[in-house]
Amino acid sequence: MVRRAFFLLLAFLAPGAAIALRPALRTLGSLHLPTSPTSRPTVAKNYSVHYFQQKVDHFGFNTVKTFNQRYLIADEYWRKDGGSILFYTGNEGDIIWFCNNTGFMWDVAEELKAMLVFAEHRYYGESLPFGDSSFKDSRHLNFLTSEQALADFAELIKHLKRTIPGAENQPVIALGGSYGGMLSAWLRMKYPHIVVGALAASAPIWQFEDLVPCGIFMKIVTTDFSKSGPYCSESIRRSWDAINRLSNTGGGLQWLTEALHLCNPLASQDIQHLKDWIAETWVNLAMVDYPYASNFLQPLPAWPIKVVCQYLKNPNVSDSLLLQNIFQALNVYYNYSGQAKCLNISATTTSSLGSMGWSYQACTEMVMPFCTNGIDDMFETHLWNLKEFSDDCFKQWGVRPRPSWITTMFGGKNISSHTNIVFSNGELDPWSGGGVTKDISDTLVAITISEGAHHLDLRANNALDPLSVLLARTFEVRHMKKWIRDFYDSAGRQN
Amino acid sequence: MVRRAFFLLLAFLAPGAAIALRPALRTLGSLHLPTSPTSRPTVAKNYSVHYFQQKVDHFGFNTVKTFNQRYLIADEYWRKDGGSILFYTGNEGDIIWFCNNTGFMWDVAEELKAMLVFAEHRYYGESLPFGDSSFKDSRHLNFLTSEQALADFAELIKHLKRTIPGAENQPVIALGGSYGGMLSAWLRMKYPHIVVGALAASAPIWQFEDLVPCGIFMKIVTTDFSKSGPYCSESIRRSWDAINRLSNTGGGLQWLTEALHLCNPLASQDIQHLKDWIAETWVNLAMVDYPYASNFLQPLPAWPIKVVCQYLKNPNVSDSLLLQNIFQALNVYYNYSGQAKCLNISATTTSSLGSMGWSYQACTEMVMPFCTNGIDDMFETHLWNLKEFSDDCFKQWGVRPRPSWITTMFGGKNISSHTNIVFSNGELDPWSGGGVTKDISDTLVAITISEGAHHLDLRANNALDPLSVLLARTFEVRHMKKWIRDFYDSAGRQN
Repeated sequence: MVRRAFFLLLAFLAPGAAIALRPALRTLGSLHLPTSPTSRPTVAKNYSVHYFQQKVDHFGFNTVKTFNQRYLIADEYWRKDGGSILFYTGNEGDIIWFCNNTGFMWDVAEELKAMLVFAEHRYYGESLPFGDSSFKDSRHLNFLTSEQALADFAELIKHLKRTIPGAENQPVIALGGSYGGMLSAWLRMKYPHIVVGALAASAPIWQFEDLVPCGIFMKIVTTDFSKSGPYCSESIRRSWDAINRLSNTGGGLQWLTEALHLCNPLASQDIQHLKDWIAETWVNLAMVDYPYASNFLQPLPAWPIKVVCQYLKNPNVSDSLLLQNIFQALNVYYNYSGQAKCLNISATTTSSLGSMGWSYQACTEMVMPFCTNGIDDMFETHLWNLKEFSDDCFKQWGVRPRPSWITTMFGGKNISSHTNIVFSNGELDPWSGGGVTKDISDTLVAITISEGAHHLDLRANNALDPLSVLLARTFEVRHMKKWIRDFYDSAGRQN
Repeated sequence: MVRRAFFLLLAFLAPGAAIALRPALRTLGSLHLPTSPTSRPTVAKNYSVHYFQQKVDHFGFNTVKTFNQRYLIADEYWRKDGGSILFYTGNEGDIIWFCNNTGFMWDVAEELKAMLVFAEHRYYGESLPFGDSSFKDSRHLNFLTSEQALADFAELIKHLKRTIPGAENQPVIALGGSYGGMLSAWLRMKYPHIVVGALAASAPIWQFEDLVPCGIFMKIVTTDFSKSGPYCSESIRRSWDAINRLSNTGGGLQWLTEALHLCNPLASQDIQHLKDWIAETWVNLAMVDYPYASNFLQPLPAWPIKVVCQYLKNPNVSDSLLLQNIFQALNVYYNYSGQAKCLNISATTTSSLGSMGWSYQACTEMVMPFCTNGIDDMFETHLWNLKEFSDDCFKQWGVRPRPSWITTMFGGKNISSHTNIVFSNGELDPWSGGGVTKDISDTLVAITISEGAHHLDLRANNALDPLSVLLARTFEVRHMKKWIRDFYDSAGRQN
């Protein structure tokens, strides 16, 4: 019960922490997804799989334990003469999934004569420091931190340069999206001698402490729905009370179970869970509101929120009709393929490997305050309560969050002394609220993709790509080329 | 026996690691040393002593243990309006000793309207994470790393800014000497949002791997002796074989015991130890070859090597006369005060608190290769043998060194993307061999003090200071003022 309550809470308090930042988790069982019908299969994704022996603890000498970090290499277009290395800093999931969903790197490989490397984050995918015991308790989880992950990347890059003939004197650029983008930016900040620059796509490095308002995330979700159809967000805003009212009527729970086509009958104690699950669905839709049919979190049509909003044009209907409309909207997300027989509200709370890892990270370093007030957003009011959050973390993992640490370690807003980082954000992406959306200096630059959702720019070229993302990619390539050129110019001067 | 062999080995293989970088250790029992007669007591050292609760482990969440880090504050000249904070990044010893030996900070406090803060390094002085058990085993020592120490400094500075009214919007400059200077430079590199610049005095950040020749340290020691008197280094070079020969003659051990006025009779297995102890003495003299009488490692006359070399003018004498001369030379170092009744060759191998800490650090992160060949230097030949070193570390501490880690973490020679660090080095200082002695960029600058030994510039003003150190300090102050000005200019633009 405690466990379940925690997950519920996490889901609501930290929608991003619990869901949005772990896109990989739901698809752990379905790697090598078929390319979506409209996305052009520009490059065949041929890669080799490798393992590198890492120290479990980079910051202490008491344990000598090591583990195998998985990484992928694709070197079809790599040139030893004047080439480069694009290094994906893996985030909270299976690296093969990220590899398959980062078509941008494959698209630019030839132009940059680049070797592509995709490095898996420790405690995700196959890179488990203690195998099946990795999530057993706080002792085994002790080495799951961003600092350890960055050190893994640094060690791995040194290893590649040492062992791959021709790689030694080439510039390495870090790339990543979401938490992976945060890691790319941080890798450049902390190890500028290892990577010459970083492309941090949709990286909410400021979604900590009070660096941005805690309500900004859900406000952006709301705006996405407001803009996608008349009365759309208003319909959702009204739905919560409708659920409350219905669930309190005789037969209301059974009615809701049927109207929403739920797989399991609702009990009264499930109502908060149900609402959290619905809210998470809207959050996810905001993240993957892509301009073409895609299969990132779920198979979806182009501009899925527009499709969803077609069912939510009228907030001023009866509670039951409103909920029937909500079902149609949910069904777009959960059943676009038409395969689902019912909707499963526990789908967002499964404790899969990856969600375990991120739940722990959210309870330790990645403390992202989220809140709603129902006015600036379409959700029920929920304040950010660190004490409560901390207590739940302690119950769940036996650890307490350290909410200021990421700011101490990585600088918060005070990052102007760093160089060569491109921060890209999509205006539709709720994570842009915690991202760097204004230039900080000549070499710390921000790109805003007006029609972009969560790291759209990292996805493969698509005929339906809006101009804004094409421009963003052009701009990103220009910066990467400059970093590469500067690297070779500097090397030339030294010889 | 194993333990003793280890210490001997350490002493020889890594004279710096074992001795030179731990100047504090010998004086742990004699804090608040009287100021030396000729050093001008420019400022009365009034400070308050404070303690800050630090996490024992900044990089993991399994342990919630904390300890009290000691720090000192002197704010007589601090001004809330336009002032600054000079933050000494404590090294391997009692912070009060560093405070008393860093007169430069006291001398410039008024000019920079500066608050002085001296922060003690964990595992030294009173800042012991596990009290008396801190050095018990590798489990207790697990949190003794430079990364943890830097995180302590970052957390402490944030704490000071939070809690001292007027400190929040002031620039902080890191200062340190020797290993403390390395920490200052690294603090700026890793936490540029916390300190606006760093003065790294006599900081051998390149005394790792093959970044500099392993023989450079002892070569500089030798040069100091060569330049300080005719045939001085040649006399020392010849002394080793003379000791070997004498110790093999009948009654030779007893004769040596008496000629060198040793406290305890020599046994044949002590000969290597004796030679190591003598070599360490020459190393220490090279470090403290100051232009005025001082009491840093020992009470010494001005230009002590010149005094020593007066006894070593003739290498072409009998073995016994040579060793009698060597005694006179050693006596300058060990008995300038005239108080010593005999010389104690185990003085360099005491396992005081601080030496324990540094020995562990040298066996883990601070792996500094040293070697001699007897040709470019005046010592017996000794190769750098990592395998042997590692095995000894394992015997001693149950840990093995990670010789490449510091380069991975802090960049080795590839540090040009950082800014605002002044590296100062004395040409007489053997540690200058591993230091940054050439400008890397406009804001990563090197100062060479031609008449300077180990961080002479950090010592208090003295009437006998050579012009080179006066110029160095002027240059250092100019840079610090620029960092402070830039900070306030930037803050002004933001308002």
